[in-house]
Amino acid sequence: MSPDLAERVLTGDRRATARLITLIENNGPQARRMLAALFPHTGRAHIVGITGAPGTGKSTLVNELAKAYRHGDPAPRVGIIAVDPTSPFSGGALLGDRIRMRDLSGDPGVFIRSMATRGSLGGLARATSDAVKVLDAAGYEIVLVETVGAGQSEVDIAKAAHTTVVVEAPGLGDDVQAIKAGILEIADVFAVNKADRDGVEHTAMALEMMLDLNHASRPTVHHSVLMQVESPAEPADETPVWRPPICKTIATRGEGVPALLEAIKAHRAYLEETQTMALRERTRVEDELHGILGHLLMRRLMARVPPDELAHLVDRVVARELDPYSAAEILLQVQPSLSPGREDS
Amino acid sequence: MSPDLAERVLTGDRRATARLITLIENNGPQARRMLAALFPHTGRAHIVGITGAPGTGKSTLVNELAKAYRHGDPAPRVGIIAVDPTSPFSGGALLGDRIRMRDLSGDPGVFIRSMATRGSLGGLARATSDAVKVLDAAGYEIVLVETVGAGQSEVDIAKAAHTTVVVEAPGLGDDVQAIKAGILEIADVFAVNKADRDGVEHTAMALEMMLDLNHASRPTVHHSVLMQVESPAEPADETPVWRPPICKTIATRGEGVPALLEAIKAHRAYLEETQTMALRERTRVEDELHGILGHLLMRRLMARVPPDELAHLVDRVVARELDPYSAAEILLQVQPSLSPGREDS
Repeated sequence: MSPDLAERVLTGDRRATARLITLIENNGPQARRMLAALFPHTGRAHIVGITGAPGTGKSTLVNELAKAYRHGDPAPRVGIIAVDPTSPFSGGALLGDRIRMRDLSGDPGVFIRSMATRGSLGGLARATSDAVKVLDAAGYEIVLVETVGAGQSEVDIAKAAHTTVVVEAPGLGDDVQAIKAGILEIADVFAVNKADRDGVEHTAMALEMMLDLNHASRPTVHHSVLMQVESPAEPADETPVWRPPICKTIATRGEGVPALLEAIKAHRAYLEETQTMALRERTRVEDELHGILGHLLMRRLMARVPPDELAHLVDRVVARELDPYSAAEILLQVQPSLSPGREDS
Repeated sequence: MSPDLAERVLTGDRRATARLITLIENNGPQARRMLAALFPHTGRAHIVGITGAPGTGKSTLVNELAKAYRHGDPAPRVGIIAVDPTSPFSGGALLGDRIRMRDLSGDPGVFIRSMATRGSLGGLARATSDAVKVLDAAGYEIVLVETVGAGQSEVDIAKAAHTTVVVEAPGLGDDVQAIKAGILEIADVFAVNKADRDGVEHTAMALEMMLDLNHASRPTVHHSVLMQVESPAEPADETPVWRPPICKTIATRGEGVPALLEAIKAHRAYLEETQTMALRERTRVEDELHGILGHLLMRRLMARVPPDELAHLVDRVVARELDPYSAAEILLQVQPSLSPGREDS
């Protein structure tokens, strides 16, 4: 382990950047020290999450977005993190992602990395968040975080972004409506991809209608995981409301991608002008802190519970002699100072 | 709150069952006491998870499966829990599910419930697991747990099942391959639905090939979240290996559903004959205990941290004065007995 790895990341060294992300994936203690050293140099990147259901073609769209950024003047450096939370056990990143992004890999201003979980989803969310910090510190002004899938895990990872693009496509069946209901609250920009397919107008109109309903029915809320409270997310009543634009794209031909890029930039400008960026940063930090605390608390508890005692308790629950909540209370008693609380009765 | 709610659930009372599940969703302390009372009466139901990407038609398939069970002789009572993890904030269950299942609702031997999260995904996983226990105790011999989506969250919820059916459909695009990589490890039975569509043979063959590769390359492992170890899942080397059968179905016409039902029953028989059921139960219990412990630990810590101090720490992280891991360490110091551990350095 080179002592100046963090310094090399700060100079934009690609190999050092890749190596530090590998250390993060392997969850080494050195990685944490490096991250602490890099942290003061973060906060400059625009973090853009791209999420959506399978079959929407979002991987190709991410590819084209990166190219569009690189054609700008000045051209920002672009980091891409492709997250695969659907592979919880195999521990390998997607070969497909790497092949797909081959036409970007010759560009020294683009850094591509696939990440998959080696254990828990929480671990993947933490590792992704840390990898974003590394790219930020390494001078990537744009960091695109792509998540495969459409469930809560993707929502959680997308929440770590400043701007979240939700990708839809025509004709994905009846579940799409259901997904929209949840995804509406994280979408800053919609891309209706595969816009050359039948049903694109229907999909775009359905989104418009849901946006109409959403704006009429409830204000945006700031959901604090740590404080367990909800408070209005808008800094003041007079703050203009952001209505997610709907961009039609055909990623395979690059069509509509420049307009999508403009929409993403407009959202960033909105965040900065209305001071909403500061609120998003708070939410991001709270979510991250929540994940780290949960991880550390569990590790500390497990280090104190004798494995035999744990196995015995699991046996008793399996035998229906003890319910899981009572078993949890017993495990918490192992560390006496954790148990007397009455707050969760 | 009626004191005999748990007793009424045990007699199969539908209203009491529905009411207790609502209490669970609202996370009331009474619910936990009721669950402890019901727990010794659980363990009889066959819990069948049905998961897959949007657009595969799995909701219709769940519907038809329930009908097929009810046409059996003797006909088991069937509980259906439709989980919607994609709606993290809105707190409402899917109206669509209820409408869709209308043709089952006249049958007194079928109980249908939609569940959505009101906060964290962890909360939804706990509530789903508890709702399954209620239906089990209420005498539903079959509990079908349907999850909308295809990400890690669905995988987690599906893991709570004895038998997991993964639904695929032809022509869902390039991401489908990626999803299979992760989902292969949770699938006990595959249903290739919409088998009247083009590409059904291609999808079935791709699955067969992945199964071939999977069996050749690695043994099934038992992944313990609590112990952080992996051990072979098979009780002994001579245990026959279960190869997930691939069933072609056209759910909208009920075609192929009887064969799918037989495959699910065959898997249950396999679990019982090979004593793999006991191993699945252990994994289920460990996962559940892990979730409950994480929740209780966080609540206890947060009850001890003054809100001002928490807000101040978040401010410092937002200002990049302090990195998130250091902030977490400071929060853990608030409770002195939690801090001296060296195990997570």
